[in-house]
Amino acid sequence: EVRDLVEPLHPADIADLIELTPGDQRRALIAAIGDQIDGEVISELNDWVREELIDSLSPHQVASFAAELDTDDAVAIIEDMEEADQRAVLRALDPDDRAAIEEALSYPEESAGRLMQRELIAVPEHWTVGDVLDYLRGSEELQTDFWEIFVVDPGHRPVGTCHLSWILRTPRVVSIGDVMKREQTLIPVDLDQEEVALRFQKYALISAAVVDSSGRLVGMITVDDVVHIISEEAGEDILRLSGAGEGDINEPLPSTIRTRMTWLLINLGTAILAATVIAFFSGTIAKLVALSALMTIVSGMGGNAATQTMAVTVRALATNQLTTSNTWRMILREWWISIANGIALGFLMALGCQLYYHDTALSLILFAAMIINSINAGLSGVLIPIGLDRLRIDPAITSTVFVTTMTDCMGFFALLGLATLFNVH
Amino acid sequence: EVRDLVEPLHPADIADLIELTPGDQRRALIAAIGDQIDGEVISELNDWVREELIDSLSPHQVASFAAELDTDDAVAIIEDMEEADQRAVLRALDPDDRAAIEEALSYPEESAGRLMQRELIAVPEHWTVGDVLDYLRGSEELQTDFWEIFVVDPGHRPVGTCHLSWILRTPRVVSIGDVMKREQTLIPVDLDQEEVALRFQKYALISAAVVDSSGRLVGMITVDDVVHIISEEAGEDILRLSGAGEGDINEPLPSTIRTRMTWLLINLGTAILAATVIAFFSGTIAKLVALSALMTIVSGMGGNAATQTMAVTVRALATNQLTTSNTWRMILREWWISIANGIALGFLMALGCQLYYHDTALSLILFAAMIINSINAGLSGVLIPIGLDRLRIDPAITSTVFVTTMTDCMGFFALLGLATLFNVH
Ligand SMILES: [Mg+2]
Ligand SMILES: [Mg+2]
Ligand SMILES: [Mg+2]
Ligand SMILES: [Mg+2]
Ligand SMILES: [Mg+2]
Ligand SMILES: [Mg+2]
Ligand SMILES: [Mg+2]
Ligand SMILES: [Mg+2]
Ligand SMILES: [Mg+2]
Ligand SMILES: [Mg+2]
Ligand SMILES: [Mg+2]
Ligand SMILES: [Mg+2]
Ligand SMILES: [Mg+2]
Repeated sequence: EVRDLVEPLHPADIADLIELTPGDQRRALIAAIGDQIDGEVISELNDWVREELIDSLSPHQVASFAAELDTDDAVAIIEDMEEADQRAVLRALDPDDRAAIEEALSYPEESAGRLMQRELIAVPEHWTVGDVLDYLRGSEELQTDFWEIFVVDPGHRPVGTCHLSWILRTPRVVSIGDVMKREQTLIPVDLDQEEVALRFQKYALISAAVVDSSGRLVGMITVDDVVHIISEEAGEDILRLSGAGEGDINEPLPSTIRTRMTWLLINLGTAILAATVIAFFSGTIAKLVALSALMTIVSGMGGNAATQTMAVTVRALATNQLTTSNTWRMILREWWISIANGIALGFLMALGCQLYYHDTALSLILFAAMIINSINAGLSGVLIPIGLDRLRIDPAITSTVFVTTMTDCMGFFALLGLATLFNVH
Repeated sequence: EVRDLVEPLHPADIADLIELTPGDQRRALIAAIGDQIDGEVISELNDWVREELIDSLSPHQVASFAAELDTDDAVAIIEDMEEADQRAVLRALDPDDRAAIEEALSYPEESAGRLMQRELIAVPEHWTVGDVLDYLRGSEELQTDFWEIFVVDPGHRPVGTCHLSWILRTPRVVSIGDVMKREQTLIPVDLDQEEVALRFQKYALISAAVVDSSGRLVGMITVDDVVHIISEEAGEDILRLSGAGEGDINEPLPSTIRTRMTWLLINLGTAILAATVIAFFSGTIAKLVALSALMTIVSGMGGNAATQTMAVTVRALATNQLTTSNTWRMILREWWISIANGIALGFLMALGCQLYYHDTALSLILFAAMIINSINAGLSGVLIPIGLDRLRIDPAITSTVFVTTMTDCMGFFALLGLATLFNVH
């Protein structure tokens, strides 16, 4: 009866159903609906669940699923397999499909070459709209959906692109060269997927031609795949800033624990560093225990302010809004924001401190420490991600640990240092 | 000479150029390239920059830009204007455009009704492919790009959809009813844009029909607009979790400072709450100053662990991966992760503490406090966002402040409370 329920579902819904089924019942479900699972369903599955399913299939079964799919989806299934399994599947494919997939695998992971499909329509410039219609009506083997056709020169280099709606509106006798638009966004085959996504987004593309280093048309990327990348890349940044690794709720527990613990261990190191700053001033704290409560407020406020700045900076870098031409403007912005926040919140805290402890020296020191740590937070939050990005290190992965170390250490140091210097007790 | 440089640029590039120009030089640039700025450029501009530009235009100029655009883009320009300006622009529009835009404005912000364009192709089921071709070749006024045509019944309710590539491949005599696919994803006109984006993503849609409450076709949403929403929504979550508001680098400074300071003030409140926990135990700290350093490690580790869990949970909620059917599985996962992390990191810290301070009671208490706060962190990180989501409060905006309050207060309370209880000194 499960099969009857699953029968009318879209492949994406069947994939969701499999994902939502707890791990121990998944095998039973898959056995029950085995014949409903096709290449489409497999390519919609989450990485971890797919890996589990594919491990239970023979290379011939995987190859027959892959053969149904466009090259981009076939590659997505095969690229994550272990090397030996991958070779076995490739051997089981027919020579055409194998060649296409092997070429795609020769491009770097997360590059345009992995994302593109080979299945596309390319026609010469001298054809008429009528020629295109006759060609399309006659070609039975082409299974893929397409949204524009590419016009190429005799060397198979793109010279223009034609949205299908333009063709539909044009009489048969008109030449394709007069329908097409010459300005087009070409994607180099080794371009990183993040950059591919930004171009699709910026130019509102539905599909785009992928060209190799000699400018020849080698494939097509469609927006439905780009949509996944955009969502993945943006989600990735949240998870990376938080040190949550892939953050995939289908990842096996031991592997999640390993990732999370690694991050916590690094942060434990920085927390110990900050704690040694405190330990260094333990004489001062012994004289005035109130400092032990106030120092956590100074460091906490700095951490929060730095997190704000860091999130804005990481996001602006990821969306190409922050470029060399406005870096200084951005830094200056954060400088003024941090001064404004430091003065306002510092004043508030100092006032509260004065009312509660009636200790003017302590209140003034707290005011100064709040301002110092606010500026420290603002500058760390903007300069550290920008610096990491310049060094070609992903700011989303590494910024947090540097930034919080800066604000914790400086928060403790500013308050306790000033208290020691002015001998408050 | 600026004009010659700008002339060949894509509207999106002209918009980027205007955005990257510092505020004080922007007017001069706009004056120099005035005639290159059209509706397309304006609809590509960032909200803040656009507002500035539109303020300098007369209602008639804005209306003439809006008239060039598809309804969705016209609405995007007009919806952010002040009410009086909006009315002036609407009066300046011709009656058809005005009616379309007024209807769109009657739907809630960020709903499908705002995102959809009126310009679309709808044909009756009994037409043939030839009828469609003749109709499209004959209709001059339709300016928009489209990727599929919608087949409607006499009541203008969608009965199927036809990708353009299917039409191109089919002989003229075949009826559209035989080409179209009956299963389609219809978008209710009041659906939230986040949900619209998830449907496009899940079903790999290029465009979709929007229907009103009686099931009549009222508009079409295209994927190029959805791409912006996906990127915006995911970016929004990073910024909200960090309390950075819109996080827009083009926002005027005073407004950014206001948003950021509000968040910092709220967090200052929670920091003071945590500090009072410390102040409550100041007698214990006076007896053993080492506690003031160790307590920041316990609370810091808890904060980091909770941030990991919270990011994963918020992201899983935003992508519809976390549903009622797997909530318990998710909570259980985090429970085990937090216990594993608590024991491992607690043991490490206790060992270090013992080697450094040679104080077995203190080390044991530290071990216990680390485990307690790790579990507290894991459970807060998963339960607070889920709880807020159930209450229909955006977990991305509000989780951080609750979660960090929990981990700070509990971190200090666990260590200092145990130290007081067991009278460590
Ligand atoms: Mg899915
Ligand atoms: Mg194939
Ligand atoms: Mg993959
Ligand atoms: Mg990159
Ligand atoms: Mg594809
Ligand atoms: Mg990436
Ligand atoms: Mg990235
Ligand atoms: Mg732009
Ligand atoms: Mg119009
Ligand atoms: Mg808007
Ligand atoms: Mg649009
Ligand atoms: Mg939203
Ligand atoms: Mg949201």
